[in-house]
Amino acid sequence: MKKLRRATDSGREDPENATVDQISLFDQKTVTLRGWIANFRSSGKIAFLQIRDGTGIIQCVGDVQELGPEKFEKLKALTLESSLIVEGVVRKDARSKIGYEIGLKDFEILNISPEFPIGNKEHGVAFLMEHRHLWLRSSRQVALLRVRSEVIRAIRDYFDGRGFYLMDSPILTPNACEGTSTLFETPYFDDKAYLTQSGQLYGEASALALGKIYVFGPTFRAEKSKTRRHLTEFWMVEPEVAFMDIYGDMDLAEDFVEYVVQRTIKNRKTELEYLERNLEPLSRVRKPFPRITYEAAIDILNKNGKPAAFGDDFGGDEETVISQQFDRPVMIHHYPLAIKAFYMKQSEENPKLAACVDMIAPEGYGEIIGGGQREDNMEKLVKRLEEQKLPKEAFEWYLDLRRFGSVPHAGFGLGVERTVAWITGVPHVRETIPFPRMMEKIFP
Amino acid sequence: MKKLRRATDSGREDPENATVDQISLFDQKTVTLRGWIANFRSSGKIAFLQIRDGTGIIQCVGDVQELGPEKFEKLKALTLESSLIVEGVVRKDARSKIGYEIGLKDFEILNISPEFPIGNKEHGVAFLMEHRHLWLRSSRQVALLRVRSEVIRAIRDYFDGRGFYLMDSPILTPNACEGTSTLFETPYFDDKAYLTQSGQLYGEASALALGKIYVFGPTFRAEKSKTRRHLTEFWMVEPEVAFMDIYGDMDLAEDFVEYVVQRTIKNRKTELEYLERNLEPLSRVRKPFPRITYEAAIDILNKNGKPAAFGDDFGGDEETVISQQFDRPVMIHHYPLAIKAFYMKQSEENPKLAACVDMIAPEGYGEIIGGGQREDNMEKLVKRLEEQKLPKEAFEWYLDLRRFGSVPHAGFGLGVERTVAWITGVPHVRETIPFPRMMEKIFP
Repeated sequence: MKKLRRATDSGREDPENATVDQISLFDQKTVTLRGWIANFRSSGKIAFLQIRDGTGIIQCVGDVQELGPEKFEKLKALTLESSLIVEGVVRKDARSKIGYEIGLKDFEILNISPEFPIGNKEHGVAFLMEHRHLWLRSSRQVALLRVRSEVIRAIRDYFDGRGFYLMDSPILTPNACEGTSTLFETPYFDDKAYLTQSGQLYGEASALALGKIYVFGPTFRAEKSKTRRHLTEFWMVEPEVAFMDIYGDMDLAEDFVEYVVQRTIKNRKTELEYLERNLEPLSRVRKPFPRITYEAAIDILNKNGKPAAFGDDFGGDEETVISQQFDRPVMIHHYPLAIKAFYMKQSEENPKLAACVDMIAPEGYGEIIGGGQREDNMEKLVKRLEEQKLPKEAFEWYLDLRRFGSVPHAGFGLGVERTVAWITGVPHVRETIPFPRMMEKIFP
Repeated sequence: MKKLRRATDSGREDPENATVDQISLFDQKTVTLRGWIANFRSSGKIAFLQIRDGTGIIQCVGDVQELGPEKFEKLKALTLESSLIVEGVVRKDARSKIGYEIGLKDFEILNISPEFPIGNKEHGVAFLMEHRHLWLRSSRQVALLRVRSEVIRAIRDYFDGRGFYLMDSPILTPNACEGTSTLFETPYFDDKAYLTQSGQLYGEASALALGKIYVFGPTFRAEKSKTRRHLTEFWMVEPEVAFMDIYGDMDLAEDFVEYVVQRTIKNRKTELEYLERNLEPLSRVRKPFPRITYEAAIDILNKNGKPAAFGDDFGGDEETVISQQFDRPVMIHHYPLAIKAFYMKQSEENPKLAACVDMIAPEGYGEIIGGGQREDNMEKLVKRLEEQKLPKEAFEWYLDLRRFGSVPHAGFGLGVERTVAWITGVPHVRETIPFPRMMEKIFP
């Protein structure tokens, strides 16, 4: 009976292409479903197969009277992660979490799996990470990665629906302008190249050509950190808008984060409930978000047992203390110019400040957005390069963006994995990407 | 009068946020528009400003009577690529390509550009590539990159709308399994890593977890090629489907390519017309596409002055000869197993053949898709690794996908830049990505 899949439709119309997430469309109909055994038990006359197909898990019931004794006997060979194709009738079942089960009419076993390395017993993280290619099949990982897929889709739909053009910045870049300590370096024919840490500078060139753009790709940091918030390879989306200032940038950041969070909890409710994510704090992620100055943030720290002074940068602990004062993401703006990158715009109101913003997620998930207005004044930008002892020649092309048709412009970067960690409520970013890369982890 | 942009809406409703591509919505209304001078000429009493804003170019007419002599005089300082914000009334104009012009009521000049390096005279490619960050602003480059953005959006919408999950494969990979000659290598803490050439093997692991997935990211080849079809860094989309065979794979490939081409010519007609792309051959990209076996392709070559024999692989010249026999993309399937990668599935009908497929674009644009069914039989796969002298240990994790719940599965890879080159009709892939990377080109 082997019937393979047709991948060109959405699975909504064709009972021969049924998937668990669409099963309610086929009540009382005979469907073909393909998947792997997530659980199996059998008595003498009846067998219960939990089948996972990547979109969900459904119970299929095999009855010796329906299947015949010979066929029924074959079911008993099934083990965890054995693969099979089944045909059966969809019927309502009040005890089922998804409301339906399938009464088996026929099946074909494709592969009987030997003992699957990841069973129902507890495994250490190191073991699971070594078996990431198999760990991906567990319900928890499937749920997390379906949320990731939806978060990325929401990000793209947000920008695509608002007149932004996707402009990919290069991954291989020629200069190690800000030092090589956290850069991955590769020989590039007779030269050297470095893996990008941010597409922003190129994104600025693109914004001056196309107006509103976003960069979306992998970025790299060779940081010797082993925290729960660090990956060496992570995905970042970076919108950049010509003719926008720091205040428009904050409007964009909060509107964007509200959209991504609300759409994800709407479209991935099942997965978030499976992950036991408390949706109440996420449902509060509605604009306006609180906006506080850097100086107000210093006050909060001092009042909450974290002494701080003007000029200090904030680490994870400080971010957590500040975010605890609010019930939704908080934007901290106008940091001291001296602690910020050379391209940040000097505030027009106070020359000691930069027109920049960080957004801190609630519940201790830390910084998810960093951004701001860019210095569009040629002389000031050159002065900043000199102050930070950066090689002007390497930035001549970037300075061209101020020479020719300079305009106020701003943007930000949002880290995908930290955002997924926050929305799903997982403590470590390593589970928010299919194959995480960390300081001591580059396999499989 | 400076009025900066609000980036959170689509520009469809707010006349203060008008863009050229939406200008018809604001007929007879006063709008604010932001952009750069694409052309300027003035007589004593009237000035014509061509303003580009990234979404198009519109003529704005300044009249000394409306603006007053003092304000009018300021217009005369405008140069190519100077930036400004204008306020004016949208009015129908039969002579305009876009049907409208703007009568200026007010304006503010933000930056007067010194002589722009890229003028109306002819420039060599080397010069333009050195100034890629400015070349991006030319109408031709803007049109090409808007098409690129739409092609990528169509690719994602196709898969997202059909139950595929995005699963990012890693960029940094641990093994140089198939030799290091075309791999970029980087130190990875105390180890080494290589930049991915394809996300497929990881995509297979993901498909066995989630059913239908696609990988979409940058891939890298350190090839010493200087052809018009090669980049060292290029984007590739790679769907992978569990429970699908080579025939389902071909169905998917043609349905997908039809969708991407037809949607792009529908949504980016203006840009394709600007690029003088003949839309007639693209409108013929409708399924079914011709499917010929490798052996039929050999016959075509022999009948058309390109002698070939079983076992030969096809280069660009052969692809062109074959594609000229058809009026739409052609799929060549079942190549000799011996010339294909170890993971290709051995044909069940003929053990000398692989169940694989390449799709060749018409009009000489070469291979845009390579794919096929994967070997899902453990013993055969191990034998193939041995035949190709590949280190089995490095592939143990990949072999696990056959040990545990192996199923027929298939997929393909489509190169974004070659597809954009074909759809836009440009001869060289270097113009199809914002910042191209080639053997001798990694700047800016």
